Amino acid sequence: MYGQFPLDAPGEGFGLLQPAGATPPATANRLAIVLFSGTIDKLMSASIMATGAAAMGMDVEIFLTNWGALAFRKGDHRANKRVSASYADYQSVLLEQMAAKHVSSWMENLEGAKEIGNVHIAACSHTMTLFDLELSDLEPIVDEVTGVAAFIERARDSAMTLYI
Amino acid sequence: MYGQFPLDAPGEGFGLLQPAGATPPATANRLAIVLFSGTIDKLMSASIMATGAAAMGMDVEIFLTNWGALAFRKGDHRANKRVSASYADYQSVLLEQMAAKHVSSWMENLEGAKEIGNVHIAACSHTMTLFDLELSDLEPIVDEVTGVAAFIERARDSAMTLYI
Amino acid sequence: MYGQFPLDAPGEGFGLLQPAGATPPATANRLAIVLFSGTIDKLMSASIMATGAAAMGMDVEIFLTNWGALAFRKGDHRANKRVSASYADYQSVLLEQMAAKHVSSWMENLEGAKEIGNVHIAACSHTMTLFDLELSDLEPIVDEVTGVAAFIERARDSAMTLYI
Repeated sequence: MYGQFPLDAPGEGFGLLQPAGATPPATANRLAIVLFSGTIDKLMSASIMATGAAAMGMDVEIFLTNWGALAFRKGDHRANKRVSASYADYQSVLLEQMAAKHVSSWMENLEGAKEIGNVHIAACSHTMTLFDLELSDLEPIVDEVTGVAAFIERARDSAMTLYI
Repeated sequence: MYGQFPLDAPGEGFGLLQPAGATPPATANRLAIVLFSGTIDKLMSASIMATGAAAMGMDVEIFLTNWGALAFRKGDHRANKRVSASYADYQSVLLEQMAAKHVSSWMENLEGAKEIGNVHIAACSHTMTLFDLELSDLEPIVDEVTGVAAFIERARDSAMTLYI
Repeated sequence: MYGQFPLDAPGEGFGLLQPAGATPPATANRLAIVLFSGTIDKLMSASIMATGAAAMGMDVEIFLTNWGALAFRKGDHRANKRVSASYADYQSVLLEQMAAKHVSSWMENLEGAKEIGNVHIAACSHTMTLFDLELSDLEPIVDEVTGVAAFIERARDSAMTLYI
């Protein structure tokens, strides 16, 4: 993976893929998400955005980085009760309300989104190298490991991009 | 509200609103904001972005989810001194500097933005159901409660979208 | 700086720069980033996005606000070990892994991005006023201090915008 995205020399690792100032392609009906966070409030939010977009006929491209990638480690999602630290005082209320309302989990939402639409989930190679992870360490819902260039290629002609 | 966006079956709740792969509409001169956070540093940032965009002739569409929706509960904004937990050590500095500089509040900024431009604020139906809230529980600056599909419809042809 | 962006009357400070509803310009091959956060996990993520985009021939426009601006104060980056509070338990793992893998710092990444591409970094005038900062207080990698209107002008025709 170092060959794809060397951690010690990110600039050289990319090469110039196209000339500077080139015209970007026309906008595609796609939602691109950088999923940086691994708290269940943000994972839930991302999964709902992805589900909504898929139901509206949009392609969805999700790029898992940092804590977002760690949240997809096998089995992690069943134990994850992490809530954004800024709202730690709401953690028990959130968990109780989600249980009381029988809210489907963020993982179930993403599985549902994949069933109804074209949803592609990639984990960031930089993050995977940093935390010594392989694709086989992640839940099967993750399609592949890619570099940031591959994500940007997909995101820059997307109708909508969110950094979550 | 469950009919609009069932918490236990988000996929079915949407239906397919348009065929997959359809061309998105041309870009509109609009700023779309998902306001997920409820800390005053992020609320202030969102209100300044909205004000700037409105002053530049852009329409502004704000979608309140999770902690962002809770921050608009009636009266909450007058007591809210919550600052991002990652910068908790700066809370007193931030509050003191805002007082010393006579900075207008984020709510005043949003009210000003509504006066000079076309600013629409909607609360996420999913969040409202989860926390047992009705539109009448929120500040009057909130225009309505809508599902995520309605927001995506507005955001995907926006010139600029921010997840805050 | 108050003349450019009065803190107590943001609406009046802008003026109407163009008529409401005007058509936005065609999309430019540019990545726009609002860098609100000052934790090293998010700074690293922003620097990798910027590096990737620059290597792909995209222009990059970075707008430093709030904690993001404070992270660029002279010398601050060498001492900064701040990690998102939601993942405080991973702080030592992150720092150890970055040291073990010889990961270049986020500042080195940004310097590299500036060498290979057209990367412009501006600090938010509102934030600078709030914290009594001048351009000379920031690292030389920051090109100028501008108002939010100048950033939105650049962001709204960008192919991709991220709020980090």
